[in-house]
Amino acid sequence: MYEFPIQRAATLKDKPDPKTLVFGKVFTDHMFLLNYDAGQGWHDGRIVPYGDLNLPPSAMVFHYAQEVFEGMKAYRRPDGKVQLFRPMDNVRRLNDSCERLCIPQLPEDLALEGIRALVKVEQDWVPSEPGTSLYIRPFIIATDASLGVHASHSYLFCVICCPVGAYYAEGINPVRIYVENEDVRAVRGGTGYTKCGGNYAASIRAGERAEEQGYAQVLWLDGVERKYIEEVGSMNVMFKVDGAIVTPKLTGSVLPGITRRSCLQLLRDWGYPVEERLVTAQELFDAADAGKLDEAWGTGTAAVVSPIGEMGWNERKAEVNGGVIGPVTQKLYDTLTGIQWGTQPDPYGWTMPVD
Amino acid sequence: MYEFPIQRAATLKDKPDPKTLVFGKVFTDHMFLLNYDAGQGWHDGRIVPYGDLNLPPSAMVFHYAQEVFEGMKAYRRPDGKVQLFRPMDNVRRLNDSCERLCIPQLPEDLALEGIRALVKVEQDWVPSEPGTSLYIRPFIIATDASLGVHASHSYLFCVICCPVGAYYAEGINPVRIYVENEDVRAVRGGTGYTKCGGNYAASIRAGERAEEQGYAQVLWLDGVERKYIEEVGSMNVMFKVDGAIVTPKLTGSVLPGITRRSCLQLLRDWGYPVEERLVTAQELFDAADAGKLDEAWGTGTAAVVSPIGEMGWNERKAEVNGGVIGPVTQKLYDTLTGIQWGTQPDPYGWTMPVD
Repeated sequence: MYEFPIQRAATLKDKPDPKTLVFGKVFTDHMFLLNYDAGQGWHDGRIVPYGDLNLPPSAMVFHYAQEVFEGMKAYRRPDGKVQLFRPMDNVRRLNDSCERLCIPQLPEDLALEGIRALVKVEQDWVPSEPGTSLYIRPFIIATDASLGVHASHSYLFCVICCPVGAYYAEGINPVRIYVENEDVRAVRGGTGYTKCGGNYAASIRAGERAEEQGYAQVLWLDGVERKYIEEVGSMNVMFKVDGAIVTPKLTGSVLPGITRRSCLQLLRDWGYPVEERLVTAQELFDAADAGKLDEAWGTGTAAVVSPIGEMGWNERKAEVNGGVIGPVTQKLYDTLTGIQWGTQPDPYGWTMPVD
Repeated sequence: MYEFPIQRAATLKDKPDPKTLVFGKVFTDHMFLLNYDAGQGWHDGRIVPYGDLNLPPSAMVFHYAQEVFEGMKAYRRPDGKVQLFRPMDNVRRLNDSCERLCIPQLPEDLALEGIRALVKVEQDWVPSEPGTSLYIRPFIIATDASLGVHASHSYLFCVICCPVGAYYAEGINPVRIYVENEDVRAVRGGTGYTKCGGNYAASIRAGERAEEQGYAQVLWLDGVERKYIEEVGSMNVMFKVDGAIVTPKLTGSVLPGITRRSCLQLLRDWGYPVEERLVTAQELFDAADAGKLDEAWGTGTAAVVSPIGEMGWNERKAEVNGGVIGPVTQKLYDTLTGIQWGTQPDPYGWTMPVD
């Protein structure tokens, strides 16, 4: 068990109305910090008032993007208690990201207990309106004051939280997505399977282009053959094709999503054939033409499940399930959100109370 | 002409002995700052005392690595004056990086004049010992306090400087390099042609592995076919094969180096056949076996020219020019450094006085 010193904020902020919240702009009163220094390891876990990070302009994170993050949520149960969803999976994935980026491994229990301790301090910030939650952003940045291109010798692990409104406040409306042919998000041998900042920086331009053309997200192709589907926006993607569930396999350039893993488990337990394999854009558009692309959806922490209503690829268009959410997508959404918010039993032991 | 307000540091630091300098750890007394805000553009260029950047933990740069940089030097001429080398090329490349990363374009004159104004204020920091210089690091970071994955609406352009010792204080000793088969630095469609932080973060692990095996640098292969040479460490790379100069062409995953461009110009003007094309590792190791790999060297701002004495690839080894610097490498080094430090004429108009 870890005990962290807590320095309380002198004044607490007013809690915002969850109905008007914009994602990722309002933060709670405190944050969790943990330092790493070579020779000393990770040390001085503590909860302090939310506030600026003061770093020299030579800090490595500003130049060489040695930085990784996670995204997870705390949910308010009907009994008022607050719970996390598979939080150790996030901590383990953070360590996988660290390995690729040459950041020292976090002791997993220490990281998890830091996150839990912060959420416990901030539990009044977890909203209770339907679909709302507290988004938790653990991240690590390289802090060496040095311009040499090497792994940093010092790091800061920081956890911040922001309350988020219901993702589907207007109802679940399927989105239009667009196959990106030019920009590449990741390639095997690169950092695609990690949550490192560089992946996201590389993805912004294509996202802007898609938006300009009226699409909500980019459907990413692999960087080598430019034909295999990888992700949608910053979510994993799944398709129901002729009765089977098809999702890109984890080749190294695809993020091993925790929502992805949870969906695949549910789908298998429900008896669907699940195929984790290479899947081409060609195959999907052909299936759509043949009337066999039954459903398509993205999976991720923010939306849980995001139905896809239409796909564009060069001049081709593919409508999915008449542009409305399909039954498998809906069942996944209902089941996962039921477990996450504690309105349904959790037979998998995926949830963890913060207290 | 731009005039920037200057806030002088209250006390000036002692200048370090160039003989004991470690690259990128000692910074001068001041820095140049310029802000961008949506609707306002780039504004408030100013010179202030070197000091911490205070950013909220939600600042985009910490999460999505929306950040780009440049590297350049100021050189002390024999007449005591200070000059820059092709500085507008750095500013233009910075803007190319910005375009890929969805960062607003810098007005080129404004950026260049900011750099010059800072170096002018710091000109006492430009050392005069042979081979020494003042390294200049312009960089841009995304500062929006928001976790949404979008281009930031606010940025900071910052220029910092550090005096650097002679790169070859011990004489020019060729290095051993190692062909990396597993990790990939960049791929076409990605960000390889830019100086964005994510490229460097992705390269650290292979660099550490190479060092553990006694190699100085990684020789990067392309991310698609894994057979074409791209860069060496964070430098461009050139080979003299059977009398001709061969260098990887700029396919989108290779940085368009300013030292590279300068070397190619010199080599063409000296009458060498210069081939910018795809070049495989196989071809180079076969050429070495056949006694036709005459010379090999990296090019970059830090080393100018870095001769390669040996290459390793799986179980194969290739010695280059008996492990000593070759005549073309030496001539390139002498000519470029002669122009940069002002000990030779500059027929190309590459240098620019700061004053």
